[in-house]
Amino acid sequence: MSARPIYNFSAGPAVLPEAVLRTAQQEMLDYNGTGFPVMAMSHRSEMFLSILHHAEQDLRTLLNIPSNYKILFLQGGATTQFNMVAMNLAHGFPSADAVVTGNWSRIAYEQMSRLTDAEIRLAAHGGEQFDYTALPPVETWDIDKNSAFVHFAINETVNGLQYQTVPKLSDDLPPLVCDMSSEILSREFDVSDYGLIYAGAQKNIGPAGTTVVITREDLLDRCPDSIPDVFNYRSHINRDGMYNTPSTYAIYMSGLVFRWLLTQGGVKKIEAVNNIKAQTLYDAIDNSGGFYINRIRPDARSKMNVVFQTASAELDRRFVLEAELQGLCLLKGYKTVGGMRASIYNAMPLEGVQALADFMSDFQRRYG
Amino acid sequence: MSARPIYNFSAGPAVLPEAVLRTAQQEMLDYNGTGFPVMAMSHRSEMFLSILHHAEQDLRTLLNIPSNYKILFLQGGATTQFNMVAMNLAHGFPSADAVVTGNWSRIAYEQMSRLTDAEIRLAAHGGEQFDYTALPPVETWDIDKNSAFVHFAINETVNGLQYQTVPKLSDDLPPLVCDMSSEILSREFDVSDYGLIYAGAQKNIGPAGTTVVITREDLLDRCPDSIPDVFNYRSHINRDGMYNTPSTYAIYMSGLVFRWLLTQGGVKKIEAVNNIKAQTLYDAIDNSGGFYINRIRPDARSKMNVVFQTASAELDRRFVLEAELQGLCLLKGYKTVGGMRASIYNAMPLEGVQALADFMSDFQRRYG
Repeated sequence: MSARPIYNFSAGPAVLPEAVLRTAQQEMLDYNGTGFPVMAMSHRSEMFLSILHHAEQDLRTLLNIPSNYKILFLQGGATTQFNMVAMNLAHGFPSADAVVTGNWSRIAYEQMSRLTDAEIRLAAHGGEQFDYTALPPVETWDIDKNSAFVHFAINETVNGLQYQTVPKLSDDLPPLVCDMSSEILSREFDVSDYGLIYAGAQKNIGPAGTTVVITREDLLDRCPDSIPDVFNYRSHINRDGMYNTPSTYAIYMSGLVFRWLLTQGGVKKIEAVNNIKAQTLYDAIDNSGGFYINRIRPDARSKMNVVFQTASAELDRRFVLEAELQGLCLLKGYKTVGGMRASIYNAMPLEGVQALADFMSDFQRRYG
Repeated sequence: MSARPIYNFSAGPAVLPEAVLRTAQQEMLDYNGTGFPVMAMSHRSEMFLSILHHAEQDLRTLLNIPSNYKILFLQGGATTQFNMVAMNLAHGFPSADAVVTGNWSRIAYEQMSRLTDAEIRLAAHGGEQFDYTALPPVETWDIDKNSAFVHFAINETVNGLQYQTVPKLSDDLPPLVCDMSSEILSREFDVSDYGLIYAGAQKNIGPAGTTVVITREDLLDRCPDSIPDVFNYRSHINRDGMYNTPSTYAIYMSGLVFRWLLTQGGVKKIEAVNNIKAQTLYDAIDNSGGFYINRIRPDARSKMNVVFQTASAELDRRFVLEAELQGLCLLKGYKTVGGMRASIYNAMPLEGVQALADFMSDFQRRYG
């Protein structure tokens, strides 16, 4: 076994801060002197309610969430939110708008029509299927003012695109609904620009199994009684997020990550580090004289998921395998895209990114 | 702090085997020498696929699951299954039958009609609302042969009832769909008597956050393409249980519990222990000369959730608080039922049950 550290570039479930894992390890059998493992606590016990409350409060602090926004930790992943958003917020509306800029917003667009009577309109499209290289500016979105909401994904994990300026709409347009799974907590933004935000935890928040939903309170009036309570935002809010048993341990872990992020100085501080991390990799690509290619337009490059490739699939395969042997792990691109993908969420240290940049340079020397 | 052990009688999330927690603690930062924490593994990595595969195989062994049954680990809890079962299996049928014998099967009956065109028929009812004390024998269920399925809950966690003989239907009747959340793996039964079985993990399987679904393969032909893929059993099966990111850590923990159960000698062995545990508490009740009351008909008493009360709510409250001080924790009955409830799933050791019986005797001596 090598003593070399392992750097995990997985797109999700992704790397977690080592300090957080050590705390979880220490508390595994006895949380905070209670004698109870977190996993064995009733979700209605005061012990767990305190964990949930602190996680919510820390998230509120980190994102400066206004008091007229509610927070839920739901099950089912971002994928379930595609349908919950439509079932809850489009009820009684003629349409809802969707912006398609990559793999996930395309799936959202396709799936969300299945349990709603509203027409799902394509308000903007970023490129041909599996060939997304640019982002349609928010000013060009063809929005119907009568639509229930406008859905988009601010960062596309598979394709490596990200809106560099956080989009917002004027007040006379429908509320923005945003899939922030792969960038929440990575940079500052104004929650009040959004109607509803959701994010699967397994990228920038915690382990897989819980999904954060942040919703403006007045939108809950739209949730129809006719849908099952387990898919109804208002039912969850009315039971303080406990309509059914939540994924308690994933919430606990998310809370530890929130606390870790506060000790790092919060979102503003981690954003500065994230900017350096992304710049380090894009410089490695751009200064390679074409050996490494990133086809995304510079103004749409993701700071969370850096995709790149060499001139051949065979060389890409070799890159991934050799990197793995050096402890630079899970760099293979998404199955439909190929090439490499380095996911560099909050918990990826700068040292890991530097190690990857060094390896890229070394690999190019040997194969360029 | 007392050195007295803590016994956790929570109905769920419930006690987990200490050996399992110790393994999880040890492997928190490095699973099996991989250098990866389980929580940070991509769900598509070979490391995690191996964890998932072994969990499935061990569950198959423990329950002797026939090869024409598929296993899924889904998110959303048993509550989500109320609707997934109806959306998937009732499609194209005029009706589906439901048996109501307590809190959870009543909620299932109420919720499952919301996203299906099939009429949900009440095939049997075990008592008035919040007053379930007996179980309608399977021979008395009024089943429509044209119904899509017959849904029931084999153990009612809140009310403390359990079918002592595992129900089965003749082959000319619709397939049985069973909520086994609070008793799966606690006793032997024949999976092939059922069309579909589901169980939230947080009682007899593992932590909250994953739900086991065991379904006969031919029923998957019913799943309509029109529903969202994330709610479609066939979509999950077609992607080897990976339609979207599963609750990976909860699956890992469930796998550790399965392995622990195998080392205990499997379901037959734990069933024998469970019988002794339940008998110990019912003896304590029945031999109290009426100080402790359990109103469930003897042939419907649950071996997993033993409910009891004293003559007054005030004395019940005192019982719960004094027991808590003795390390006998979370004995308070469900909010709508009151009294006490001792949940004694597989991971509750016989010593914990004996300690509770001793406390009951002592408490009676002091207040009887």
